Amino acid sequence: MKKILLTTALLAASTGYAAAEVAVSGSARMGLIYNGTDTFFTSRIRVSFKMSGTTDGGLEFGASVRADQAGEANSGGTSMDAGSVFISGAFGKLEMGDVDTAANALVGNVSGVGLTGLGDWNELGYMGQEDTSILYTYSAGAFTAALSAGQIGTEAYSVAVKYSTDMYSVALGFEDEGFGFDHQQITLGGSATFGGATVKAVVADSDHASDTQFALSVDYKTGAATITAFYADHSGNESMGLGASYDLGGGAKVVGGVVDTGFDTIADLGISLSF
Amino acid sequence: MKKILLTTALLAASTGYAAAEVAVSGSARMGLIYNGTDTFFTSRIRVSFKMSGTTDGGLEFGASVRADQAGEANSGGTSMDAGSVFISGAFGKLEMGDVDTAANALVGNVSGVGLTGLGDWNELGYMGQEDTSILYTYSAGAFTAALSAGQIGTEAYSVAVKYSTDMYSVALGFEDEGFGFDHQQITLGGSATFGGATVKAVVADSDHASDTQFALSVDYKTGAATITAFYADHSGNESMGLGASYDLGGGAKVVGGVVDTGFDTIADLGISLSF
Amino acid sequence: MKKILLTTALLAASTGYAAAEVAVSGSARMGLIYNGTDTFFTSRIRVSFKMSGTTDGGLEFGASVRADQAGEANSGGTSMDAGSVFISGAFGKLEMGDVDTAANALVGNVSGVGLTGLGDWNELGYMGQEDTSILYTYSAGAFTAALSAGQIGTEAYSVAVKYSTDMYSVALGFEDEGFGFDHQQITLGGSATFGGATVKAVVADSDHASDTQFALSVDYKTGAATITAFYADHSGNESMGLGASYDLGGGAKVVGGVVDTGFDTIADLGISLSF
Repeated sequence: MKKILLTTALLAASTGYAAAEVAVSGSARMGLIYNGTDTFFTSRIRVSFKMSGTTDGGLEFGASVRADQAGEANSGGTSMDAGSVFISGAFGKLEMGDVDTAANALVGNVSGVGLTGLGDWNELGYMGQEDTSILYTYSAGAFTAALSAGQIGTEAYSVAVKYSTDMYSVALGFEDEGFGFDHQQITLGGSATFGGATVKAVVADSDHASDTQFALSVDYKTGAATITAFYADHSGNESMGLGASYDLGGGAKVVGGVVDTGFDTIADLGISLSF
Repeated sequence: MKKILLTTALLAASTGYAAAEVAVSGSARMGLIYNGTDTFFTSRIRVSFKMSGTTDGGLEFGASVRADQAGEANSGGTSMDAGSVFISGAFGKLEMGDVDTAANALVGNVSGVGLTGLGDWNELGYMGQEDTSILYTYSAGAFTAALSAGQIGTEAYSVAVKYSTDMYSVALGFEDEGFGFDHQQITLGGSATFGGATVKAVVADSDHASDTQFALSVDYKTGAATITAFYADHSGNESMGLGASYDLGGGAKVVGGVVDTGFDTIADLGISLSF
Repeated sequence: MKKILLTTALLAASTGYAAAEVAVSGSARMGLIYNGTDTFFTSRIRVSFKMSGTTDGGLEFGASVRADQAGEANSGGTSMDAGSVFISGAFGKLEMGDVDTAANALVGNVSGVGLTGLGDWNELGYMGQEDTSILYTYSAGAFTAALSAGQIGTEAYSVAVKYSTDMYSVALGFEDEGFGFDHQQITLGGSATFGGATVKAVVADSDHASDTQFALSVDYKTGAATITAFYADHSGNESMGLGASYDLGGGAKVVGGVVDTGFDTIADLGISLSF
């Protein structure tokens, strides 16, 4: 959470004026990326707008959207992206816009490596859904359930459940890509923390992929450093990655990684900044 | 006006530092829309930047621009939109950019209904004008006069006058679409408030439309609820709408409406948020 | 620097919470521009995001990006533009993104005139470089050295040095446009201040231009007014400009200029605002 949010929160506290607000935060990165053949400079800047408020009856609501400038060549920026709107209360949280499937939101992915994500080979892939999509989440103690759907008429939907404690979590998700695709996927994920180490695993069984997909990661935190390794089997193609992040404090980290994609060895190194 | 503006105003007061500033505010909505045949999810997020300052001699100046993410499918956002720049003082207010015609600014429209505007059938339509357009407004007590023009060479212009008190207003506008169009329109509008009810009416007489157009609306406010109804005759096509808004406090409202467009019955329902 | 930055800085001081932050500032202008034949309205609005932070070890880092709405017709805004990311410390400042060449950054241009820049005939032209480009700057007392390069593989690079005091500066730059262009340019610039007058001169010698290019400007500041004149010889085409700026305080200026481009006489006049 960013400074501007703190200022408005502080002033709200000091003035007794509790209003909706817009918090502006940002992220940026700069470094080098090796695509298996050549090395390039890479940089990216993003501005995030996070809006939040509370009704007189105590319901929380908000919206978020992102303004991006990205890419190896950042001459052309993408405009407002990844926006969603939500309202939440005792009934749970209802979110609409450019939202993830329930399975993606609850099962998620094992950890990736590198400054840029290096092709996200740690991810097994969740289904896309036509926007405006919708995601409903309900939590009770350690238990969370989620239900999502693509735009009405697409018949795309997903359901997922998760049980999560400080030490471990397990999650199960189901996705149906909907009308015209006849494509379904079941995902099962888990994580566990042992001292400084966190192990994550995800298994995905799709009726389109010939084999079950599998991914495993370990994050090991020691002082300001975090070492991450992952292995992923995408229906027979094996990929693996090794990365490290060193926290410089104040929102800056040195981040780098190497990934064997099964076809190439790619790598990156640089500085990741959050504001 | 949003929280960030308050914080800067408060700090300006406490520090004696009176500088120009940029206030960031936002709006969002989420809900369902029925187009006469099918129902769809709908959501929208907008970020607004409102800049303001004061010269040493007491002239006020400012600019505003909006970053939008909109649509039934908000995968593609529109970039910076609806920007204008102004300077104002005893001489009035001079505004340039993407501004409305004088008639649109002073006569305006009767109230619409619904979360999304439902096609804006309450509006009779003002003329477009090529940007950079210009709008000059002068107020003296209850009286306001306005003059606008499209980009130089387009010969598009508009003049309007308005008399407005707390209880009622009347406004008259004239628009000429300019070079190559030979299109003119006169609009006459009025509003009056009786207790919780506000009645608005607009008549538009264009030399292109076969008949005079007419629109009437009633807003009735009772507690946190506002009920709105309108009737509009667009050169013989009759449309009417009924809507309601319930204020949840903190910037959130439940808003819905039904419109008989003369061709279809369309409707929407959802939550409207301002930050 | 803008107001929002002040608020976060003030609150950081009062709370002891030193975090990275995003400062939002803006600029706008409105006026008239004469293109040698016709006169048009002109307006522009820009929002700037400036992010900054400090690591625990005292390194400074940041990023900046701009959201623009511009043009004679500002119906279509450009999205996020001109972004760059930097980290700086005792080793100097390393910046990546959409950065200038070293020669452009250190030698720069003589002063231009007018609200809109009027075609920037005061500039002799520096080389473009494919982004992500990189700029490294090192300062020691009055001396600054800079090195820049285009994206790896383009072989475009630039080196420059500058010696700068309160009274005068001299700078020398070299640019090579890189692979496939065989194009090089040397630029030499200087400035000196005598009372209210600042004189600037730049000479550019390119192996593509038939003659040496030359530009000279004088800025004369008296009270709230600044008068600027320039002369530029672009390989035989002589252009000259005369402009004035009057500071109204609070971030507003009246700005105008006339330029004889060698082909036409163009001019503009309006209000320039910063927030």
